Amino acid sequence: MSRKHRSKEAPGGLWLYGLHAARAALANPRRVVRRALLTERAGEEIGRPLLGRVRHETGTAEAVGRLLPPGSVHQGVALLCEPLPRRDIDDVLTGGATKPQFVLVLDQINDPQNVGAILRSAAAFGAAAVIVQDRHAPPESGALAKAASGALDIVPYLQVVNIARALEELGRLGFWRIALAADGETALSEAAPSGDAAIVLGSEGSGLRRLVRERCDAAAFIPMAGQMESLNVSNAAAIALYEISRGTLAAV
Amino acid sequence: MSRKHRSKEAPGGLWLYGLHAARAALANPRRVVRRALLTERAGEEIGRPLLGRVRHETGTAEAVGRLLPPGSVHQGVALLCEPLPRRDIDDVLTGGATKPQFVLVLDQINDPQNVGAILRSAAAFGAAAVIVQDRHAPPESGALAKAASGALDIVPYLQVVNIARALEELGRLGFWRIALAADGETALSEAAPSGDAAIVLGSEGSGLRRLVRERCDAAAFIPMAGQMESLNVSNAAAIALYEISRGTLAAV
Repeated sequence: MSRKHRSKEAPGGLWLYGLHAARAALANPRRVVRRALLTERAGEEIGRPLLGRVRHETGTAEAVGRLLPPGSVHQGVALLCEPLPRRDIDDVLTGGATKPQFVLVLDQINDPQNVGAILRSAAAFGAAAVIVQDRHAPPESGALAKAASGALDIVPYLQVVNIARALEELGRLGFWRIALAADGETALSEAAPSGDAAIVLGSEGSGLRRLVRERCDAAAFIPMAGQMESLNVSNAAAIALYEISRGTLAAV
Repeated sequence: MSRKHRSKEAPGGLWLYGLHAARAALANPRRVVRRALLTERAGEEIGRPLLGRVRHETGTAEAVGRLLPPGSVHQGVALLCEPLPRRDIDDVLTGGATKPQFVLVLDQINDPQNVGAILRSAAAFGAAAVIVQDRHAPPESGALAKAASGALDIVPYLQVVNIARALEELGRLGFWRIALAADGETALSEAAPSGDAAIVLGSEGSGLRRLVRERCDAAAFIPMAGQMESLNVSNAAAIALYEISRGTLAAV
């Protein structure tokens, strides 16, 4: 199938692929799935209850691969989907819920592999949202959804216009905003509040922008004894989620 | 430059690329660098003291790119290197050192991006080694070194024939061997010993093999409150390193 043919089929849509991503998309009532092509085996893996939701066709692995960018690890399934409807911070977060909530805020982290892995960890630890700046973050895509292993359809991925303003809004909602930075003044384990929290991460190259960091209530570092200057950003996010979710788990 | 030309130039050698990887390779006395091609700007970034070690040429970014697989993010530098000399567990670990040591053992984790990120975190937290099975782990390569961001030349990457036997050896050296598994009996934070520790991780797909897990002293899980079944393996490794290194930091 030619590129032309493909793009004609997906105006404004995107192809999701991989078993985890496909299952999560099919299970997400907010996700509009226009079309599904899958191998018999992938169909069995996913099962009738989920597949019953959509028009689907069975084909070979090669036919599935032809719908996707070369090298996509599709595991026999491709779904043509609409992007999720945009949501605002207000719609998703209330602040002061009975159980403390925590969110991640990503300042100009562009790599879909990293952001996908961060979404996956956010879902694993029960984060309430991942907030990114729409112009400096990967858009919804098959690669992002695959790296997220389904989490793109589980954790709200909030694309805001302005990160500094989003942090002000989180502050009004009562979230304690913690910038993660090598030169932070507090160890991460000391920085976790008992209430709602937002962890703010910058890109590996340039870190947090000054205007973003100024909107935070504290800056925390991950104690490290080794010889490297920094962690991969998705690994830093995972550690922060692990540490912050302790408070939440303890408060349940 | 054709593939043929490239492989003729690098019999048994490998091309490393990217600023962090190149700096670490040049700073590693065990690393034989046969040839270096870099842009003027990359040369300035790396500096004369490190570059003085090797025969190097200046060229355009395009010329650097032609030496590497398409799409390599080389930041203007490519080094033709020998693989590092193999080392054994005995050479690297003594057991019972004045400061507790910890290592990671990876059971059949094949993806160079994940293993690279794990090496990077291992270096950041001061792990004494990362141990892999030579036939089921990524070989030294440019992609591995790039994802490791220099850590391949910092943390010993020990390629052993048999993981179960390596765990027996670690046991004899006094390492407390902790399998990381979703169905582990202890929370990770309760599992960290005060002495030497080995964290054992399996692949995302199939987890730890039975024979490997049976060689461990304990199995620990990462407490998670969310909806995902698992973390990306490099993120799980980062959390384990963070938790284990607390003990070491406290014992300093």
